[in-house]
Amino acid sequence: MDDSLSRTLREIKPLDSKAMEAARARQDELTKPKGSLGRLEELSIQIAGIKGQTIPGFEHKAIITMAADHGVVNEGVTLYPQEVTAQMVSNFLNGGAGINVLARFVGAHVVVVDMGMASDLRSHSDLICRKIAYGTKNMAHQAAMTSNEAVRSIEAGIEIVEAEIAKGLDIIGTGDMGIGNTTASSAICAAITGEPVEKVTGHGTGLDNEQLAHKVRVIEKALELNKPDPREPIDVLAKVGGFEIGGLAGVMLGAAAHHIPVVIDGFISGAAALIATELSAQLKNYLIPAHLSAESGHKVLLQYLGLTPLLNLGMRLGEGTGAALGMVIVEAAVKTLAQMATFNQAGVAQISDGLSP
Amino acid sequence: MDDSLSRTLREIKPLDSKAMEAARARQDELTKPKGSLGRLEELSIQIAGIKGQTIPGFEHKAIITMAADHGVVNEGVTLYPQEVTAQMVSNFLNGGAGINVLARFVGAHVVVVDMGMASDLRSHSDLICRKIAYGTKNMAHQAAMTSNEAVRSIEAGIEIVEAEIAKGLDIIGTGDMGIGNTTASSAICAAITGEPVEKVTGHGTGLDNEQLAHKVRVIEKALELNKPDPREPIDVLAKVGGFEIGGLAGVMLGAAAHHIPVVIDGFISGAAALIATELSAQLKNYLIPAHLSAESGHKVLLQYLGLTPLLNLGMRLGEGTGAALGMVIVEAAVKTLAQMATFNQAGVAQISDGLSP
Repeated sequence: MDDSLSRTLREIKPLDSKAMEAARARQDELTKPKGSLGRLEELSIQIAGIKGQTIPGFEHKAIITMAADHGVVNEGVTLYPQEVTAQMVSNFLNGGAGINVLARFVGAHVVVVDMGMASDLRSHSDLICRKIAYGTKNMAHQAAMTSNEAVRSIEAGIEIVEAEIAKGLDIIGTGDMGIGNTTASSAICAAITGEPVEKVTGHGTGLDNEQLAHKVRVIEKALELNKPDPREPIDVLAKVGGFEIGGLAGVMLGAAAHHIPVVIDGFISGAAALIATELSAQLKNYLIPAHLSAESGHKVLLQYLGLTPLLNLGMRLGEGTGAALGMVIVEAAVKTLAQMATFNQAGVAQISDGLSP
Repeated sequence: MDDSLSRTLREIKPLDSKAMEAARARQDELTKPKGSLGRLEELSIQIAGIKGQTIPGFEHKAIITMAADHGVVNEGVTLYPQEVTAQMVSNFLNGGAGINVLARFVGAHVVVVDMGMASDLRSHSDLICRKIAYGTKNMAHQAAMTSNEAVRSIEAGIEIVEAEIAKGLDIIGTGDMGIGNTTASSAICAAITGEPVEKVTGHGTGLDNEQLAHKVRVIEKALELNKPDPREPIDVLAKVGGFEIGGLAGVMLGAAAHHIPVVIDGFISGAAALIATELSAQLKNYLIPAHLSAESGHKVLLQYLGLTPLLNLGMRLGEGTGAALGMVIVEAAVKTLAQMATFNQAGVAQISDGLSP
């Protein structure tokens, strides 16, 4: 095979252990008790390993936010009408959404992608159109998409991230928009982790308990009907996934193949990470989980992936808002590694052999 | 009484409930499901209440980092020698410490204060000298300071923060430096919360278990000898506290009196918050706990105060490093309130009465 997905999978390598050792050694020479910056130290070492640089830095940050629609909304699993997907994408393009505010604040560009919205937006210089179809099919009645569409959605994500990397991007966050996409994400999560649907299905944008029970039944029905093979991530994506989820999986894989760290947002990005890490075991080392979403399945998903989120602020907006905040923490980590003085430089005494005095 | 402490305590008022209601109403009109920004929404509403503005903002941020020495280091409770306090303060003034890197990153000025170091540093334009004494006395043998010194340290903190506020500061973070100050902080924490010393005493900059057991015994001895009255915070500060801890308590009180939010750092700032909140019950509303320190007593202390930390990154450096990162989250919260479009502005459909379609 030498399609772009296979090529990308072959190019995802283990982290650079020499750069990581050098970064760890430098952390231990900086003017602070060893380990006292906690997770920041670990992050800086991970980034060193991803980029293959002892003292990595960032110049160009972006959040790639992918939008698509979901046929399963016909089952009545959401509170907002499907039109809101396109309305919110317009809001992204006008700079008024949560992701715009937070990305501006952290100095990241927002790349907005139509991976498969049910309608066409007027063309806009900041909108990338890679529409696979006008929304997925209703997974309660048939597969959400064909296998070919699933692969194409992943390859579109790879191509989009490669185009951004070619422009100089050196850290990336993921985000999503799509009315109905927590339903698809819960279905993916149940299929791959093997956990019961009700354990990985949450209130989305605000379902009450009765509405949640209905959503669980719809997902159970979709899984029974489509029987996605948990060992075949493309099959899971095709049968119960979404175009933005496939696209985000591709973004993660493409970024990793180019040694670019990926800050993953909440539950929908997490579902994409489930697909992508099943395709590439090495990928996980390139992922930084920004936050723990309030959406209940996210915790299950992160535990399955063995990833510990940086933040836990009860957020559940999606769009990449958690990723934008997580990116700040990563950048802070990298700055401490790059800019702090060493004990020698600062003339600060190191730890004594025993207690002082 | 009309000394500056009493005046300050009288000036700390409840939060502005009208501004908070207006901020909450605006949050509910912004283009996102209600509550989906989680803690960010709560923070923005808290800041509105502190500042008395529906849409608050920040222009000038600072971390006030206070340094002092501790006589109790003579008991062998620390791994670093006492000289490191002054060496690290020089590092602050040269811009090479963790707090410098993180404060620069978040756009905050660092205000460095000598509240009572054992030595004198050469004068420096960025060093404020408010030395109460050349370090505290050894609390294992006598009170750490007099009641008069305790009050003076708090009043110095009030004066310092008032001077910064006069220059336009509108959000503040707290930080500390002082070899031995986790010992003083654990003693304060045990005295005020009533918890056993061993439950609130941690490894500091890296004690092993035997060294930690010795530190616990020293603190127990100091508490038995000095018998601080838990209902009298000035008495606790005087007998087992430190000058930087008193100063930070003053900073918190002075800031609150002027409607300035205070992002509190880790365990040492937390001990100062224990003293300060015992002096003013209203103060707590003005405090934002930046992070959960890896120092074990911090969790006990925050639970006693009823404060939930924003971050949990295993940090234990002090200096205000956690406060600098916490400040970013607060600023992000305030920006979403100020800058996101409303449903009406963006032409986005609001939630349906029932499930869609």
